[in-house]
Amino acid sequence: MMRNFRLELCYDGSRYRGWQRQGNTDRTIQGKLERILSEITDQPVEVHGAGRTDAGVHARMQVASFHAVTDLPCGALLSRLRAALPEDIGAISLTEAPVRFHARLNCSGKRYLYRVWTSAAPCVFERKYVWRRESAPDVAAMRRAAEYLTGTHDFAAFQTGRGRKSTVRRLDAVEIIQAENELQILYTGSGFLYNMVRILTGTLLAVGDGAISPEAIPEILESRDRANAGPTAPAQGLTLTEVMYE
Amino acid sequence: MMRNFRLELCYDGSRYRGWQRQGNTDRTIQGKLERILSEITDQPVEVHGAGRTDAGVHARMQVASFHAVTDLPCGALLSRLRAALPEDIGAISLTEAPVRFHARLNCSGKRYLYRVWTSAAPCVFERKYVWRRESAPDVAAMRRAAEYLTGTHDFAAFQTGRGRKSTVRRLDAVEIIQAENELQILYTGSGFLYNMVRILTGTLLAVGDGAISPEAIPEILESRDRANAGPTAPAQGLTLTEVMYE
Repeated sequence: MMRNFRLELCYDGSRYRGWQRQGNTDRTIQGKLERILSEITDQPVEVHGAGRTDAGVHARMQVASFHAVTDLPCGALLSRLRAALPEDIGAISLTEAPVRFHARLNCSGKRYLYRVWTSAAPCVFERKYVWRRESAPDVAAMRRAAEYLTGTHDFAAFQTGRGRKSTVRRLDAVEIIQAENELQILYTGSGFLYNMVRILTGTLLAVGDGAISPEAIPEILESRDRANAGPTAPAQGLTLTEVMYE
Repeated sequence: MMRNFRLELCYDGSRYRGWQRQGNTDRTIQGKLERILSEITDQPVEVHGAGRTDAGVHARMQVASFHAVTDLPCGALLSRLRAALPEDIGAISLTEAPVRFHARLNCSGKRYLYRVWTSAAPCVFERKYVWRRESAPDVAAMRRAAEYLTGTHDFAAFQTGRGRKSTVRRLDAVEIIQAENELQILYTGSGFLYNMVRILTGTLLAVGDGAISPEAIPEILESRDRANAGPTAPAQGLTLTEVMYE
């Protein structure tokens, strides 16, 4: 009998070319999962992820779904998956889902964390999960810019490439938290364009450095021109932390 | 003028053969620091560390001292050191010390943290800093064993090799903290023998697994025989977290 499964995952993206399968490479998270699940269930398995994270981006919580014909109980399937996964990909849970559940299509929101190291102090143990900049940006200016970005906007200026029918997205919240040696930026939204969180971060940091005025954000949005936004922040500072369903 | 410096460090020990210089290899923390400081100050520099951590052991706070003839202010020396260090070794601070200060000889105590992953849940982001065992030991039994170990004892049964004149050490505290998916064991003491923290940990876990009775600890201590204690826990779970001076 065909069953539908919901898999919660985490991964350190450092070694991978991102979520999305590319040819038959084992260097993507999706490709790796599909190969392992196909071997365990002895059939071709296609895995759908809630968010197609870029090369080098991490996930503390990613949700995936897949169909398979198997008699294995979820617990046994989870154990075999855990035994086969490399140590930088973890299976948090595996449960049976309603037959129509689709991790990406049913997803109602996602939360991303971007970590910026803003100090000359060592970041030995965090080095693979932060963007190391070693200077303290103007957080108040960044928060003013974040207010202009929050809400439903056409984010065409904040994506790499084209190809999406609509570039309108709802950004529910941009929270900026100043920790001891780092700045944490939390993005919550209904959906994100390609590279959108990294371009938002690069733009907010350009504001924090004084290169872009917070009051220029509405014009940048209106321009729909990628060239007007800030640089794309490095992938390694970005982590998918939550996937929401209604 | 000859000056004496006190350097606070942290490092991820995964890639290194431990603290202590071996020939002229760059794969030890001491060797790496000595080469860089010799280059910066243009003279042979010898660095003394408070604790000679084993291959694969980490440090959140290690203290080192060295003498050098230099006019460089501490701030400039620290900046140049930071620029030259690889990203898995960090210089926390560098200050001028009294001329007789010696990081190892003046050290009055050290604290080590040993982290044991006790769950089948993923430990993707902690994987290099824990001993992954995936089973939950009997913490109450481990705490009873820890009580027998605390205090001043001859720890000959808890060292690898010989060669130390006295094997008597004072273990001030062994704290066992049960966190969500891991067990943290904190050791505070005046000094530790070679591999002592790792053998103490292997023994405590053998108690937690029921292989050794907590009440057998006094006999193991008295025997002064390494064969009676538990196995040596893996290096990667161990982190030097504090160095104390009076």
